[in-house]
Amino acid sequence: MSDPNESQPTKSSQKNRLKELSIQLGVLQREAKKLKIPTIVVIEGLDASEKGKLLNQVLLELDSRAYEVYSTHASHKDPRDYPLLWRFWNHTPAKGRIQFYDRGPYYLVLDTWAEGKLPEKDLENYWEHIRNFERQLCDSGVAIAKVFLTVPRKEQARRFEKLESNPKTAWRVREKDWRRHEQYKAYMDQVESMVQATSTKNAAWEVIDTKELREAAIELYLVLIRKLESAIKLKKKQDAAPEPKRKRVPYEGTDLLSKVKFGPPMDRAEYKRVLKLRQETIHDLVHETFSKRIPVVLVFCGWDAAGKGGCIKRLVQGIDPRSYHVTPVGAPTREELKQHYLWRFWKQMPRKGRIEIFDRSWYGRVLVERVEGLCSNEEWQRAFREINEMESHLADFGTVIVKYWLQIDKDTQLERFEARKANPLKRWKITDEDWRNRDKWELYEDAVNELIARTHTEHAPWTIIPSVCKMTARIQTIDTLIDRMKRALKKPVDAPL
Amino acid sequence: MSDPNESQPTKSSQKNRLKELSIQLGVLQREAKKLKIPTIVVIEGLDASEKGKLLNQVLLELDSRAYEVYSTHASHKDPRDYPLLWRFWNHTPAKGRIQFYDRGPYYLVLDTWAEGKLPEKDLENYWEHIRNFERQLCDSGVAIAKVFLTVPRKEQARRFEKLESNPKTAWRVREKDWRRHEQYKAYMDQVESMVQATSTKNAAWEVIDTKELREAAIELYLVLIRKLESAIKLKKKQDAAPEPKRKRVPYEGTDLLSKVKFGPPMDRAEYKRVLKLRQETIHDLVHETFSKRIPVVLVFCGWDAAGKGGCIKRLVQGIDPRSYHVTPVGAPTREELKQHYLWRFWKQMPRKGRIEIFDRSWYGRVLVERVEGLCSNEEWQRAFREINEMESHLADFGTVIVKYWLQIDKDTQLERFEARKANPLKRWKITDEDWRNRDKWELYEDAVNELIARTHTEHAPWTIIPSVCKMTARIQTIDTLIDRMKRALKKPVDAPL
Repeated sequence: MSDPNESQPTKSSQKNRLKELSIQLGVLQREAKKLKIPTIVVIEGLDASEKGKLLNQVLLELDSRAYEVYSTHASHKDPRDYPLLWRFWNHTPAKGRIQFYDRGPYYLVLDTWAEGKLPEKDLENYWEHIRNFERQLCDSGVAIAKVFLTVPRKEQARRFEKLESNPKTAWRVREKDWRRHEQYKAYMDQVESMVQATSTKNAAWEVIDTKELREAAIELYLVLIRKLESAIKLKKKQDAAPEPKRKRVPYEGTDLLSKVKFGPPMDRAEYKRVLKLRQETIHDLVHETFSKRIPVVLVFCGWDAAGKGGCIKRLVQGIDPRSYHVTPVGAPTREELKQHYLWRFWKQMPRKGRIEIFDRSWYGRVLVERVEGLCSNEEWQRAFREINEMESHLADFGTVIVKYWLQIDKDTQLERFEARKANPLKRWKITDEDWRNRDKWELYEDAVNELIARTHTEHAPWTIIPSVCKMTARIQTIDTLIDRMKRALKKPVDAPL
Repeated sequence: MSDPNESQPTKSSQKNRLKELSIQLGVLQREAKKLKIPTIVVIEGLDASEKGKLLNQVLLELDSRAYEVYSTHASHKDPRDYPLLWRFWNHTPAKGRIQFYDRGPYYLVLDTWAEGKLPEKDLENYWEHIRNFERQLCDSGVAIAKVFLTVPRKEQARRFEKLESNPKTAWRVREKDWRRHEQYKAYMDQVESMVQATSTKNAAWEVIDTKELREAAIELYLVLIRKLESAIKLKKKQDAAPEPKRKRVPYEGTDLLSKVKFGPPMDRAEYKRVLKLRQETIHDLVHETFSKRIPVVLVFCGWDAAGKGGCIKRLVQGIDPRSYHVTPVGAPTREELKQHYLWRFWKQMPRKGRIEIFDRSWYGRVLVERVEGLCSNEEWQRAFREINEMESHLADFGTVIVKYWLQIDKDTQLERFEARKANPLKRWKITDEDWRNRDKWELYEDAVNELIARTHTEHAPWTIIPSVCKMTARIQTIDTLIDRMKRALKKPVDAPL
């Protein structure tokens, strides 16, 4: 007959096991750090599933210089003024770091649903946005572990009561927690649908029951250890693989740019008259979008010397500087290179009511990075979808997205380069790089044609602005914005998240 | 007889003047950028003093890649969870950039006073904190221009009425604005006291009446132009001056460190028993400080291998990971080097209810930077006062500040270095730099003695922890925190700002 103690682990053998696992995880973290693997650990769970205690347990032997815990609080007001995923993009791990989400976007969605503020039929849309977010990160090399902690209904009540019986912890149990407890079954059903809808190949859920805390801790360790081990194996394989040969991928779609017609230049007096009127209109509309809390994103792309700066200047001239912000986009910094390429743009996305103007943008990936070979073919080819997904997430939040391509011909660019060289006030604007880019005009033309064709969507359409006459271009950019703002004001989106 | 038109400038001559000034400012901005001068422009003013329009005017010819507008909204909730100056430290200009504060801390203080939430006698304290903030930045090379825009009482009413008469802008005039209008005289008196209290040599106020908008714009340009011109002149002079010889400044005060007594090592079983009890106490206390929204800052300093990491680990072991965050401090990044040395620490200061643990800290300036000559003598000598000012601002907000110096002797350090070298799990912890630092033990000893003597204040006292016995050190760091938390819980500060 077997010893009854053998089948059930003793407390001290569990303790030893935890100690072992914690050291194993610590060693793996240091290896992942050396290999520059970024990792996300999402810990979601029911109330009173002891997320805090379990999280604390797994942090024990980690190098605190290489991880970070972000706690998601539904009660923090300011992140609610941004699209759901904004705060998580603000806390993605740099290469070599582990980012813990102590609850993540899932909790915010489920919480809003449970409060009756989000119809069930809209849930799938949010799950899709979150799936996209995770897929984008995985594709860029982030390892993602997701854990959902459960607790049986009776045990949950017991834990609430225990907290309530101690005056020092009683405040932790809020009315809302008991309300959620009443909904236990419906909530768990929804959790199950969520787990199904968002378990993907690279970011599958692990559901862990926490009735036995030590057992749960062991399971949690095993999940993280397996995730890191497989990430390390994959990364070593990738690092050992020879760099793929970069072959130029020609574009054979429609040549939109060649169809752009440049009309006769505008009369200067007429321009001044119209500009003044348009600036007044924009001024009023911005007051409206501000008071109705509609966020607006403007993207200015175009050839060097096409006049982006001048258009932006005239556009903002009439606007209250409190309502807009300009982000000039240059080469990414070292810090930015440790993150997903969309990270630096996400950080700049406008809060409700504000206007963010990007002077160059995320389209750099499918433009300069593509042409100059700064990313792999696979990377820029993947980017069309990623960009569409980002813009669609913003649009679902109610963001108005206006994208301009300022088009000029090659001769006009040459004229303007020469004029800049001759003007001491504008000389700083022109660099050797501008001349080098000019030599690749045709390659850039292909890239522009393809990016417009593939990212021209209903919620984020492109407007090609003929810019040989700068005055016409300035009026047309404002006109486009006026039109888009008016339409948005007719039916502002009131997204619950 | 003279022409009456001559004494009064015509509209078109004013327009030409504005055009001239805008270009002049644009040229100066580019020069300041090249010279890496950071600039702050604070624009404060009465309601309806047309801050927005005037700000827009001066931005006209600026390079948008090198300036930023931060708008201070009293209504933004999250910054209210941090000390008054936190959000401004989060928006200080990097070298070469201009940061506009579209209203600054002054407005927040005056607004709180006008709402009856801040007694008049407390105003001076806030003015002092703001003066310190500005002096610290000026001393580090930031040029600061401060402008207060006024509008006569009757004209203010007229502007409110004009806004109200237009349905598109009516929402901009809030009940509060009329309330403030009723208080016009009392408010202006307070503004005058503020201007007197906070006009300093390097950051003097310029008060500009905005009844005549174009005149006001011209004045505003002149203020900014004069500020940039003098900053440029000063910077050129500084850059041309020969680098001062770095002379070692000996310290002749009390040798506190030599007085530290190391008792006998603790019994391991006893340690385990006490640690468990203390961790339970800390766990409960953190719940209380969290629910009472008391922020806590822990600073861990000490010799290499003194056991900082181990102390931090035991201290946080019992705490909910949502309530604390560890900031490991290493060499500043490139981005951080473009800012004031306190900037990177300010950004990490805890919000209400949270605990921020610094593993090394701002004391690096008067320690490693002093000893290794990474800053000038003048810079580290100034730092004692700057650090005291920062800590006093945090303390006035209600932050509990606990500073530890972990003391060991030179032999103990050697033993631990050798042990680390021998342990594959800990080998990563030891670098050549650690051995190099060890050679300068006596210089470091002087620096530590001086920094403790000069920054040991009532609101932010140092605790020297004898750490030859790691167990004793761990218990003592927790005991110190328990003591400080208990005292803070007895009389939590409820600062209105």
